Amino acid sequence: MQHAKLLKNVHLLRFGQPFKTEAVVLPLSSFCTLSPKCIQVTQTDSTTVIHYPLELNDIVYGMGENTGSIDKRGKKFVCYCTDDHLHTPDKQSLYGSHPFLIVDKQNENKQPFGLFIDFPGEITFDIGFTNRNLLEVTIPSLDVDIYELHATNKKQIIHQFRQLTGTPYVPPRWGFGYQQCRWSYHDSNEVDKIINGFRSNDIPCDTIYLDIDYMVEYKNFTIDNNKFPNFAKYVAEKKQQGIRLIPIIDAGVPVSAGYSVYEEGVENGYFCKQADGDQFEAAVWPGLCVFPDYLNSDVRQWWGNQYRQLIEQGIEGFWNDMNEPALFYSKQGIEQVHEMMDQMRSNDCKVQDFFKLNDMVRGLSNNREDYKSIYHTTKDGEIVNNHDVHNLYGLNMTRAAAEGFAQICPEKRILLFSRASGIGAHRYAGIWLGDNMSWWEHILLNIRMMPAINMCGFLYSGADVGGFGCDASADLLIRWTQFALFMPLFRNHAAGTRYQEPFAFDEYTTTTIREHIKLRYMMIPYIYSEYMRAVQNNDCYCWQLGFEYSDTRSARVDDQLLLGHSMMCTPIYTENARGRHVYLPEPMLLWKVAHHTGREMCQLPAGDHWLDLQLDELPVFIRPNKMLPLTDTADNVDAQALTHLEVLVNLHNEASYTLYHDDGVSRAYQQGDFAELVLAVKFDTNSPDGVAVNAQVMCGYIPYQQITFHIITSSGDRIIKNIRL
Amino acid sequence: MQHAKLLKNVHLLRFGQPFKTEAVVLPLSSFCTLSPKCIQVTQTDSTTVIHYPLELNDIVYGMGENTGSIDKRGKKFVCYCTDDHLHTPDKQSLYGSHPFLIVDKQNENKQPFGLFIDFPGEITFDIGFTNRNLLEVTIPSLDVDIYELHATNKKQIIHQFRQLTGTPYVPPRWGFGYQQCRWSYHDSNEVDKIINGFRSNDIPCDTIYLDIDYMVEYKNFTIDNNKFPNFAKYVAEKKQQGIRLIPIIDAGVPVSAGYSVYEEGVENGYFCKQADGDQFEAAVWPGLCVFPDYLNSDVRQWWGNQYRQLIEQGIEGFWNDMNEPALFYSKQGIEQVHEMMDQMRSNDCKVQDFFKLNDMVRGLSNNREDYKSIYHTTKDGEIVNNHDVHNLYGLNMTRAAAEGFAQICPEKRILLFSRASGIGAHRYAGIWLGDNMSWWEHILLNIRMMPAINMCGFLYSGADVGGFGCDASADLLIRWTQFALFMPLFRNHAAGTRYQEPFAFDEYTTTTIREHIKLRYMMIPYIYSEYMRAVQNNDCYCWQLGFEYSDTRSARVDDQLLLGHSMMCTPIYTENARGRHVYLPEPMLLWKVAHHTGREMCQLPAGDHWLDLQLDELPVFIRPNKMLPLTDTADNVDAQALTHLEVLVNLHNEASYTLYHDDGVSRAYQQGDFAELVLAVKFDTNSPDGVAVNAQVMCGYIPYQQITFHIITSSGDRIIKNIRL
Repeated sequence: MQHAKLLKNVHLLRFGQPFKTEAVVLPLSSFCTLSPKCIQVTQTDSTTVIHYPLELNDIVYGMGENTGSIDKRGKKFVCYCTDDHLHTPDKQSLYGSHPFLIVDKQNENKQPFGLFIDFPGEITFDIGFTNRNLLEVTIPSLDVDIYELHATNKKQIIHQFRQLTGTPYVPPRWGFGYQQCRWSYHDSNEVDKIINGFRSNDIPCDTIYLDIDYMVEYKNFTIDNNKFPNFAKYVAEKKQQGIRLIPIIDAGVPVSAGYSVYEEGVENGYFCKQADGDQFEAAVWPGLCVFPDYLNSDVRQWWGNQYRQLIEQGIEGFWNDMNEPALFYSKQGIEQVHEMMDQMRSNDCKVQDFFKLNDMVRGLSNNREDYKSIYHTTKDGEIVNNHDVHNLYGLNMTRAAAEGFAQICPEKRILLFSRASGIGAHRYAGIWLGDNMSWWEHILLNIRMMPAINMCGFLYSGADVGGFGCDASADLLIRWTQFALFMPLFRNHAAGTRYQEPFAFDEYTTTTIREHIKLRYMMIPYIYSEYMRAVQNNDCYCWQLGFEYSDTRSARVDDQLLLGHSMMCTPIYTENARGRHVYLPEPMLLWKVAHHTGREMCQLPAGDHWLDLQLDELPVFIRPNKMLPLTDTADNVDAQALTHLEVLVNLHNEASYTLYHDDGVSRAYQQGDFAELVLAVKFDTNSPDGVAVNAQVMCGYIPYQQITFHIITSSGDRIIKNIRL
Repeated sequence: MQHAKLLKNVHLLRFGQPFKTEAVVLPLSSFCTLSPKCIQVTQTDSTTVIHYPLELNDIVYGMGENTGSIDKRGKKFVCYCTDDHLHTPDKQSLYGSHPFLIVDKQNENKQPFGLFIDFPGEITFDIGFTNRNLLEVTIPSLDVDIYELHATNKKQIIHQFRQLTGTPYVPPRWGFGYQQCRWSYHDSNEVDKIINGFRSNDIPCDTIYLDIDYMVEYKNFTIDNNKFPNFAKYVAEKKQQGIRLIPIIDAGVPVSAGYSVYEEGVENGYFCKQADGDQFEAAVWPGLCVFPDYLNSDVRQWWGNQYRQLIEQGIEGFWNDMNEPALFYSKQGIEQVHEMMDQMRSNDCKVQDFFKLNDMVRGLSNNREDYKSIYHTTKDGEIVNNHDVHNLYGLNMTRAAAEGFAQICPEKRILLFSRASGIGAHRYAGIWLGDNMSWWEHILLNIRMMPAINMCGFLYSGADVGGFGCDASADLLIRWTQFALFMPLFRNHAAGTRYQEPFAFDEYTTTTIREHIKLRYMMIPYIYSEYMRAVQNNDCYCWQLGFEYSDTRSARVDDQLLLGHSMMCTPIYTENARGRHVYLPEPMLLWKVAHHTGREMCQLPAGDHWLDLQLDELPVFIRPNKMLPLTDTADNVDAQALTHLEVLVNLHNEASYTLYHDDGVSRAYQQGDFAELVLAVKFDTNSPDGVAVNAQVMCGYIPYQQITFHIITSSGDRIIKNIRL
C-alpha cells in the first residue's frame, strides 16, 4: 500500500495499481507514509475490505443516487450503474455509482470523516445492515484508491471532496426554466399543441423534450423528417417562441447497414468487443445495437463530434440516456429462455420450471453475464472487462458529449444531463434521477436524494416531476411541483401514462401549478445565483440541515432541505394532506405562497410547528438576516426583463446577500466575467423607518435598475423600501 | 329498481336480481319507494354507474385492504381479490375486496354517508382520480345491491354497517399472544430451535406457524412424517411448552391419484369446472391443482370437515392461504408463451416481441382469462363464472373452515385467518395483510390499512411484522414491532429472507424487542377487553382519529391511531428516526416505554408535539379520564397468572373503565357468559391523597385479586393506590 496526502486533510491510501478512473483531478505529487486514521483495510485473495465500527447514533450521509433515508444506516448499497425503473426501497443500485459517504459522529468530541472509494467496478457498502455496529465496504479487487477526508465539520469535507473531484457543470441560464418532457411528443404537431397549451394557459416554459421517437428508427443523431419536416427551421421557430427543443441521445448504436454512425464505428473498431474480438451486440430500443467504447479517448472524440449534426440544426441541449448501459437482452439470453421452455414442455410444466422461466425472463435485461462479456480497449491498448470498470461507461459517454461541445461551440454552454453517472461526471453534466413513478413516496425519495447527489457535485439535477411511470393524480403533480420548483433541473416527464402537463387536469390544478411555475421564474435570480456560488465555492445547492446546524435534531431531518444560503423548503409529500409538521433550527420567516403575487409572510420562532397548507399553498422559509431576491416572471427565461429586483428580507439585525449574475449563455464566467451585487439591510435609528438599505455592484454588469426591499423584521414589522441602481 | 329501508337510516337500492352474496345478515322485510339520498345511479347496456360529486375537501374513508393514505381520494381501486406480492402505491387490488366507504363532508352543516356495493364481481372505484370532483363507481352488471348508510356521524355509520353485515370473528385469547412464522420452519428440529430461541432469550411467544413445507408434497391436511414424526404427540408436547402450532391450508388441491381429498372431490364433482364441464386445473405450489367449489354449501361442508384431520391431532388454529385463488399458470398460458418464443426465434428476436414475451410471462399468474374459464355450481344448480363472483371464493373457503369448526368442536374457539376476503368474511375469521415487504413504507401502510379493514369488521388482523419479502434490518423490526404490539394479530413472518425472529439480530435488538413483546403481554387484558367490546358494540378496535374527534385536523391524521377507548399509538415508521411529531386532539398522558417495568409518564397538552424517541423507546398515549389496565407478563398467554391488575389512569376529574373478561377459549361468551369489572377513579377531597378508587365486578368471574391504580393527575401528580378485589 502507498499513502499520499493530497490536501491538508485528505489522505489517499493506494493499493496495488488502480485503474485510472480520472475521478480525481488533483495532481498526486508524492506519496508519504501515513496510516488510515479511521478505517481498517484488509486484503485477502482478490478482495479489499474496509471496516469501520459504528456507534449506535452515528449517522452516515452520502451514497449519492440511492433509495432510503438521508441517513444511510441499516441498508446495503451496491455501486453498479443499473437501469432499474422500479425504485422500491429494497433496491441497492440505481443509475449512478457514487461511492462517497460521510460518517457523522453524534458526539461533540468526535469529528466526522469522509470516505471515497475510487474504483470503477462493483463496490458493496454494508452500512450497519448485517451488523448494526459495522460499516463494511467490499471491493472485489486488490487495486483500489481509498480516500479518507478529515475536517472539523461536514461542509469542509464537501469542500475537500469537490477540490479533489473538480468543479460542477454549469448549464445555460435558460436551463433553470420550467421544462416539459414526455415519452413521446411524437411530431411537430404534438409539440406545437403542447407549446400552445403552455402559452394559452399562461404557464411559463423554456423547453420541450424529444424522446426517442423523433429519430429515424431510434438512430442517434437522425431526425425523422416525416415527424419533424425541415427540422432546423422548426428549431429556430420554436426558439423564437421562447422554447428550446432538447433531443435524447441513447448510448447504443443500432446495427444497421448504411447508417453512418454505425458504419464509421465499425470501420474504426469503435464499438465494444466480446472476448473473441467480435463486436458485442445486445438489444435496446432499436433492436440489436453495438456500444461505442467511450472509455477510449479516440471514440469519445468521434462520438462527441456526432452531436454537431444536431447543434448545427440549432439544438442547444441534450439528455444522454440508456448509458449504464441498459441492455434489454442478448441473443444468448433469449436462446437460454428457449431451451428452458423446451425443457419445461417436455417436463410437463413443473412449477419449479415455471419459477426458473420467470426468473430467466426477468433476468434477461441488464444481465451481469452480458456485462461480463463486454470488453473495452483504452487508448493505451489496455483491454478491460466492462464488469471491472462498469461505472465508467455512462460517465464517459457524457464526457464525450461535453468534450465534443467544447470543440463544436467553445464559447457556449450546452444543456446536458445524463442518466448513468459516476464520481467525476459532475464536471461534464447534470443528472436526472431516472425512471421514477407517480408515487407520493417518490416525492420524498426525490427530496432525500437531492442533498446526497449534491454532495457528489451533481448540482444540476432533479427528478421527473409528477413521476415517469404510472398515472399521476392532479394532487400528486401539484405537491411534487411545489417541491421541484426549487430544484435546478425542473422537468415534468412521463412515459406513455396519463398526460401530466400542468394543464392536463382540471382548472383548479392548472391555476395552482401556473402560480407555482411563476413563482419559480420569479426565483430564478436566487436559484441561479446560489447555484453559481455553490459551483464557485465547492458548496452544495441542496443541503441536509445537519450540514448547517449542529444540533442533534437537525442532523436527522430528512424531509426538509436548505437551498442555498437563504432558504429552507419543507415540501408536502403526503397524499391528501392539508399541512405538515416542520422543524426550525432557528427562527425563520415563513412566506406562504398560493399566488405568485402574494406576500403573506410571518415570523416563526425556532422549534416545531404545524403548518396548515391547503392544496394550492406552499411554504418558503427565509433564514434570519438572509434575503431572497425575486424578479418578474415571463413566458420563458430569455423573456424575463430583469429590470426590477424584489428582495424579501428577514431582518433580525443585519442582513446581507451577494447576488451572482452573468450572461447565462457563455463560458466567460470561467474567466471571471460575471457580476456581483451586494445587498445590505440593517436597523438604522437615523432612518425615518428605522432601516437602512444598500446595494452595491462589486463587479460586472448587473441589469436590474430598481430594487424593492420587502423587509420583515424579527418583530414582524413590514417595511418596504425602493432604491434605483 | 327496488328500494328498501333496512335500518332507520340504511337504504337498499336493489337493481335487477343480484347474486346472493350473503354479505348482509339483516333480513330484508319489505321494499318501499325511496330514492337515493346522495348518489346518482345510471344503468346502460350491462353497466351500473354511481356518481357522487366531491367537494374539494371531502374525505373518503374505507376501501378496506388497499394501498394509499387513509383518505382514499385521488386514487382508483378495483375490488377483485388478487394475489399480488408487490404492494407498491399504484396497486389497485390486493387480496381482499371491500367495497365500503364513507364520504365525510368537511363542512359542519353536512352529514357523512356510507356506501356499500354488495356485488361479488369486479367493482371499480374512481375516487376523484380521473376527475377531482367526482366519485364514480362502475359495476359491470345490471344486477346489484347498493346500500346508502346515513347518520349524524361516522361511528354510527360503522354501527349500522356492522348490524347489516354481522358480528366479527373472535379468536381464542391465546391468539392475542406473540406469534412467530416463517416460510418455512421445515421440521420439528427447526421448530424446536426457534422455540428454544424464544425461551432461552426470555421472549414470550404463543404460537409457531407451519408454512407449506410441513405437508406431504403440499397436500392439504397431510403431515410429512419425515419432518414431523408422531405429529399428534409433538403438538401436545409443544402445547405443554405453551406453544401452539398453526398449520397453513391452501385453497388448491393437487391433482394426485391416491390423495384422498383429491379423489373424494373428483368423485363428488366438488371441484370448479371449465366451460366444457371438465375440472379446471392450474398450477400453484404443488404443481397442477383443482379448486374446491366453495360457493356450493355441500362442498363447504365437505371441506370444513377436512380440518378434523388436524384438529384431532391437537391443532387449534389455521391460516387459509392462496384463496383469491392464486393461480401461477395454466397449461394454456404456458402454451401461448411457447408459441410466442417460436415466433420470436423465427422473427430474429425483435424488440417488440421481447416486450410481448415479458408481458406474457408476467401475465401468466393470476390471469383474468383463467378466472373467466372457471365455473362454479351453487347448491341450487346455478352455474356462475368465477369472474362474475370472484370475490366470494376465498370468503367461502374461510366460511367452510369456520362452519366445519362449529361442527367439529362446537364449544371451542379455533384460531383462523385468511388471506383473501370479502364483506361478510369477518364473521368467520380474521385476515392478515398478505405478502408485504421489509420496507419502512410498509409499516406506514400497515398503520393506514388497519382502520380501513376494521371498518369492514376485520378486527382480528395485522400485517407480517418485519415484512414478508426482502431482508429486514434490525431497526425496521424494532420499529415495526413497536406498532404491531398493539394489533390483535401480532405475527412476525418472513419468506426465505434473512432470519428475522426477535433474537436473530444483535443483543441490543433482542433486548429491545423482548421489552416490547413483554409490554404486549402486559397489555393483553386491555387489548382483549377492547377487542371484545368492539365485537359487542359494533365498534372498531383501530380508529382513524376523525371517528372520535370532530376537529378538521383529526380528520386527516393518517399516521396515528386510536386503539379502543383509552389509547392512542403514534408509531415511528421512518428509517433512522429518533423521534416524531404527534398531534394530540386533547390533552393526553404520555407513557414512554423502553423497559416493560418502566413507568415514565407525563402529561402533554393538546396540540402538536415533537417526541424524542430513541430506538428502544415507544410512546403510549392515554386519553383523559381513561385507563389502561395491565397485568404481569409470562412466557405465553395461558401462563399469565392474572392475579394482579395494574391500571394506569389519566385522571382529569373522573376516570372510568369497564374491563371485559371471559374464559378465552369457549364460545360461552356468545350466551352472555363473560365478566365485567368496572373501575372508577375520581378526585375526592375526603381521601387523604385526594383520590377515591373503586372496583366492582358487574357480572361473571374476574380472576384478578389485587388492583394497583397508578394515577397521574392532569397536573402531573402521581398517586398509587392498591385495593383487593
